[in-house]
Amino acid sequence: MSKTIAINAGSSSLKWQLYTMPEETVVAKGIVERIGLNDSIFTIKYGEDEKYEVIKDIEDHEIAINMLLEQLTTLNIIDSFDEITGAGHRIVAGGEHFKESAIIDDKALALVDELAEFAPLHNPAEAKVIRVFQKLLPNTLNVGVFDTSFHTTMPKVNYLYSIPTEYYEKYGARKYGAHGTSHRYVAERAADMLGKPIEELKIITCHLGNGASITAVEGGKSIDTSMGFTPLAGVTMGTRSGDIDASLLQYLMGKLELTNIKDMIDILNKKSGLLGLSGISSDMRDLQNSDTEAAKIALEIFEDRVRKYIGSYVATMNGVDAIVFTAGIGENAVDIRKNIIDGLSFFGCEMDADKNNVRGEERIISTDDSKVKVLLVPTDEELMIARDVEALKK
Amino acid sequence: MSKTIAINAGSSSLKWQLYTMPEETVVAKGIVERIGLNDSIFTIKYGEDEKYEVIKDIEDHEIAINMLLEQLTTLNIIDSFDEITGAGHRIVAGGEHFKESAIIDDKALALVDELAEFAPLHNPAEAKVIRVFQKLLPNTLNVGVFDTSFHTTMPKVNYLYSIPTEYYEKYGARKYGAHGTSHRYVAERAADMLGKPIEELKIITCHLGNGASITAVEGGKSIDTSMGFTPLAGVTMGTRSGDIDASLLQYLMGKLELTNIKDMIDILNKKSGLLGLSGISSDMRDLQNSDTEAAKIALEIFEDRVRKYIGSYVATMNGVDAIVFTAGIGENAVDIRKNIIDGLSFFGCEMDADKNNVRGEERIISTDDSKVKVLLVPTDEELMIARDVEALKK
Repeated sequence: MSKTIAINAGSSSLKWQLYTMPEETVVAKGIVERIGLNDSIFTIKYGEDEKYEVIKDIEDHEIAINMLLEQLTTLNIIDSFDEITGAGHRIVAGGEHFKESAIIDDKALALVDELAEFAPLHNPAEAKVIRVFQKLLPNTLNVGVFDTSFHTTMPKVNYLYSIPTEYYEKYGARKYGAHGTSHRYVAERAADMLGKPIEELKIITCHLGNGASITAVEGGKSIDTSMGFTPLAGVTMGTRSGDIDASLLQYLMGKLELTNIKDMIDILNKKSGLLGLSGISSDMRDLQNSDTEAAKIALEIFEDRVRKYIGSYVATMNGVDAIVFTAGIGENAVDIRKNIIDGLSFFGCEMDADKNNVRGEERIISTDDSKVKVLLVPTDEELMIARDVEALKK
Repeated sequence: MSKTIAINAGSSSLKWQLYTMPEETVVAKGIVERIGLNDSIFTIKYGEDEKYEVIKDIEDHEIAINMLLEQLTTLNIIDSFDEITGAGHRIVAGGEHFKESAIIDDKALALVDELAEFAPLHNPAEAKVIRVFQKLLPNTLNVGVFDTSFHTTMPKVNYLYSIPTEYYEKYGARKYGAHGTSHRYVAERAADMLGKPIEELKIITCHLGNGASITAVEGGKSIDTSMGFTPLAGVTMGTRSGDIDASLLQYLMGKLELTNIKDMIDILNKKSGLLGLSGISSDMRDLQNSDTEAAKIALEIFEDRVRKYIGSYVATMNGVDAIVFTAGIGENAVDIRKNIIDGLSFFGCEMDADKNNVRGEERIISTDDSKVKVLLVPTDEELMIARDVEALKK
């Protein structure tokens, strides 16, 4: 039977879902977390609530994928590797080249590599995963599904930076955004749940995970998003700074005696955000379990920056009908959702504390009277990816 | 009669205004431009539209101030130097130390020098001018009025960047903001004009000049502002980029073959903003008079970025009672004010087109029914400086 695997590789994680296509039946799914850290968590869910889990150090993505393929056969989920005829890979940066999902041949893979300068944490990991697939599953069709595609509808006013325009024209220096597949999915689900045509709605989608971005979706189209030229910009993230004064780079490079800006950007990508603020962890759960002042401030900063982007997009759209939470933090952090929305009552949002007291379940979590609806929508980028692979198999 | 002089010294300029206090009467004002260059321009305006001007080489600030004092007596504006009992000096960077205006003794002056790394072009020039005043007018009280003081009430959540906290603790890397004296003045005027105690108001002040910043003023205190560690951050400005993705610096330095980040920051400070976007001019009036597509986009981007900051501060304060426009663009650009406010009707702002059709006049420009009041308040930083000096004379 023909199967398609949807792969969502982050810098320290590998999330996957195996479908029988075109039936769209999920036959197994899983996640490898904390890749490259100690006590990595490897999980497969399959069959009737069956679960395989192991906690051990997993050094890199190749080891994780090898483990995955071996376990899929060991657990009799697949009979042989050949069954997996398609692999869809979420790719963060598609630049202006990839306006839609594409078969990843060697030429396309070279482009994904080239675009690494737009997403230094992600594209290399994703290209690496595709190469592992090419090596381990040489007959499988690899498809790239780009986070940037959904944001190609942004108007120039929102995607241009206030820098000499020749930098855009010559070098493609502009906002591209990310998490597009997720924003598109949850915006469409939200419209369905509200029983209204998406064309008539102003929706703000909050994809809050280790990476986080906020998108203004007007009439079903992304018109602005918080991530920028790369996924470094926007709100405070697990290890990423989000927005800062560019002058600070010059100042800090002087203080830290750095001569190469790459080292400074690495600090902003890998040692900043919740980790840098708290000094404890990039993981929201660790901060919530901590009682230090620094962890408390880090949480408040996270909530504030999300709230500010919501406010700025209410301004950009001159209105909002619905705010949607998704991804790891958005789906699970009850208190953070509550704190964010409680601070936005002026906009006409009112959280229903009982309805909000849930993790990872699709539902409306605002009160019935709330003028602006608030929704929790677990994202399903994998399904979108599997569908795009299926379409390109033909 | 007791007089106070308000001084705004730049690296090559000296702007001043002489007041009779406590009457707050302006008896003369002027500017010395091109100090240290050839053909410096020395101007005094006084009496009933009288003007004194001379163009000659003025080598440094000491010579400029000597000329100024001599001309003030020659023109019979003052009888003797002793009449100037107070001098208020605008100082750009006050760091965390100067939470309000302060008498500048030797200890304070050493601190102003120390803070030069936060404002390398400004603080040294300002410290130098204070030393000249100490020498030439030894009995005059020198007071520092800091651009940053008003913003020292910002909570940690708003002034911390999401970077390792040790950079704040060791190096003072945080948001300081600027234009504080202007934001303070127009916020206080707005409360007076609305006939309400400032303690009960949520005000967003938009200082829109060649440099531009937006401030959230809650209960009379600045709680957040769009400029950052330096005045580079925030909204699109005449030649400054405002906020951009920090990763873009690394990318552009590669493309432009720059090895020193100072050169990149110079581009973002001097060749970006409206100038970079339009390719025409940093002056809003030139853009308004142009019919190129690029000039149109530049104007739209400026309006959008101001609107977004307003939205984010409405979110931060969970409400807004008044929005205030000031400074060159804010006081004079009728259409820009209108476009910004028309796009914020969701917040309850309604511009009165007739009332708004005015330049540089203090008035409420929203409709009587507008839930959020919109005000035009010409700024008067010099008066604030003179008042602060007067207060410290006692």
